[in-house]
Amino acid sequence: MNYETPLFFRVMEYANAADRDVIDMVSGNPDWEPPAALREGLREYADLEPDRFQYPPSEGVLELREEIAARRGVDHDQVVITNGGGEANYLAMARALERDNGSEILLTDPVYPYYPGKTTMLGGTQTFVETSADGRLDPNVVRDAASDDTVAIVVNTPNNPTGAVYPEATMQELVTVAEAHDAILISDEVYDHYDLSGQFTSALSIDSTHRIVTNAFSKSMAATGLRVGYSIFPPDLVEAAKSRHMLVNVATTRPGQYAVLNALRETPTEYYERNRHRLRERVVTFTDALDAAGAEYTRPNGSFYVMARFDGYPGSLENLMRLIDDVGVAGMPGEAFGDSRTAWFRFALVSPRVKEAAARLADYFD
Amino acid sequence: MNYETPLFFRVMEYANAADRDVIDMVSGNPDWEPPAALREGLREYADLEPDRFQYPPSEGVLELREEIAARRGVDHDQVVITNGGGEANYLAMARALERDNGSEILLTDPVYPYYPGKTTMLGGTQTFVETSADGRLDPNVVRDAASDDTVAIVVNTPNNPTGAVYPEATMQELVTVAEAHDAILISDEVYDHYDLSGQFTSALSIDSTHRIVTNAFSKSMAATGLRVGYSIFPPDLVEAAKSRHMLVNVATTRPGQYAVLNALRETPTEYYERNRHRLRERVVTFTDALDAAGAEYTRPNGSFYVMARFDGYPGSLENLMRLIDDVGVAGMPGEAFGDSRTAWFRFALVSPRVKEAAARLADYFD
Repeated sequence: MNYETPLFFRVMEYANAADRDVIDMVSGNPDWEPPAALREGLREYADLEPDRFQYPPSEGVLELREEIAARRGVDHDQVVITNGGGEANYLAMARALERDNGSEILLTDPVYPYYPGKTTMLGGTQTFVETSADGRLDPNVVRDAASDDTVAIVVNTPNNPTGAVYPEATMQELVTVAEAHDAILISDEVYDHYDLSGQFTSALSIDSTHRIVTNAFSKSMAATGLRVGYSIFPPDLVEAAKSRHMLVNVATTRPGQYAVLNALRETPTEYYERNRHRLRERVVTFTDALDAAGAEYTRPNGSFYVMARFDGYPGSLENLMRLIDDVGVAGMPGEAFGDSRTAWFRFALVSPRVKEAAARLADYFD
Repeated sequence: MNYETPLFFRVMEYANAADRDVIDMVSGNPDWEPPAALREGLREYADLEPDRFQYPPSEGVLELREEIAARRGVDHDQVVITNGGGEANYLAMARALERDNGSEILLTDPVYPYYPGKTTMLGGTQTFVETSADGRLDPNVVRDAASDDTVAIVVNTPNNPTGAVYPEATMQELVTVAEAHDAILISDEVYDHYDLSGQFTSALSIDSTHRIVTNAFSKSMAATGLRVGYSIFPPDLVEAAKSRHMLVNVATTRPGQYAVLNALRETPTEYYERNRHRLRERVVTFTDALDAAGAEYTRPNGSFYVMARFDGYPGSLENLMRLIDDVGVAGMPGEAFGDSRTAWFRFALVSPRVKEAAARLADYFD
């Protein structure tokens, strides 16, 4: 079996090896502080009794599952704590494929590259559905693409890489399409705390046994390295998902779960508001510079990313490397996200130097 | 697809719900202190800069891989840091199956129950080979069982549940059998720090491109909840294993990796010697009581476990539950480990109350 290694790591290696100052806008690692209570949770954990250093329950620490369940309006039995959003999506997609009623997974184009990679690894096949220039997904296009072989529709809202946020009507329609084909809508909502539009709708708000919601604390708590996330399954799918989680990972890291639980309980809403505010300012700074550079771009409604296109300078890996060497700005080539955005680049607004990066790009393409 | 949930968690639930004091000898969670430097590592991590809270390299923190590689005499490129021994074995078995030259995995009977569970989940088939009453594995039996369909031989030394430690000649022969069938010897060595016999031989000491070694810091550092382990692959198998690791988990928890690295560097050998000494004492205490109870048992050469058999009281789940209720001692039923030990129970010597448990059993069966 072969499955492609995502390009992220190759690009980061190239940027790190460059012979000049490079502003890193490659990957979605927040550059801001995690919650103080998350750091405090790790400190507290370090001093706990030895038995707290042993296996947590496989499906996750009960108090954390209860805290998540209360916030998301589900039963804690439906919640599995995972090794970040990565494992959450892996479990969800595996579950959809193992219902043994088909092998096709519908993905959007552009797409977060881990989804097709996971699909192939799990023995599924991908069908890509188009999105509009600004990233909106038309549920009718999904309906037309769905077939009896469809086991899942995987979406990401707020979206990486387009910055689109799907409105309630879209989410409702996607669930309806999934139900019509006895498939599962898998909604990856890891950027839910970075909705800049007020339009974000969780798939959980639509009552159905045909949707799985995945999430993580990686982005909301600026701690992608902690590796704590979760999946919320319909009751009839959760037991088999717990088994796979147990057989793959046994359990999710306990100090991380402890720290996240403490941060969930103790972090004021101002923390999240401050991070959204910072992101909003960076969007303005960066898109102003893109205007000055005469670039075409998508103004994000959420997530961390701006996709941009420069006249006569398509978003290939080769051109991305040239941008690193000649301009000192590292993004991602559009071709990493599928066939529809090969002319584009993606820039992650998670650098304190967004303004400088914007100025460099404006100078270069002016 | 269906794969069985290991019994561990059911037994622990039953023991926890019991209406009396129960001595927990169910699962292999050390009851002693993790290294002071592991706690200190977590404390230090809590105060690092925000960028240290972001994704570590997918294959693991470089300094940790280098430290492991130096200790194990391999190149750090061969080392993948995993979410504990669980993921290490999962990656190893997946890799063996994905070489596309068969689907059969040879396992021992008795067996650590996660191995058959993982095999089924990964689409493989199991063939079990007998071990002798004291857990020794005869390589000739493995040779006879191996076929052109064999992709892997999975062994665990020191062994859970038998306590056997395979001598060098056995390891050498197992590698030879694997090579003869273009299969992979997967050697799970998670109990390597608890060799009580001086006979332990790592598969790494046998030069071959047909073996994968898995390990973790869960047992050696008394931190099963941290979830940090590793696999060491032959050079031609490591890249695909890294891809799967990335697509399943993205990366392994970073505070855990930081803490383990600090503990590896700073923990004196006395820490490990003290833990082996404690285990040796417990083996004597427990087996003395088993003698008093007229029980048959295996004296372990390593790992945490004693298998014991009581006359007219076979090791079924039902009888295990009776032991919990009537005696206040929780072990594991032998039937959890395969067909060959259904008359036996397994007791994990990782309770400060081993002496009391032994006395209770001696009283009951006297």
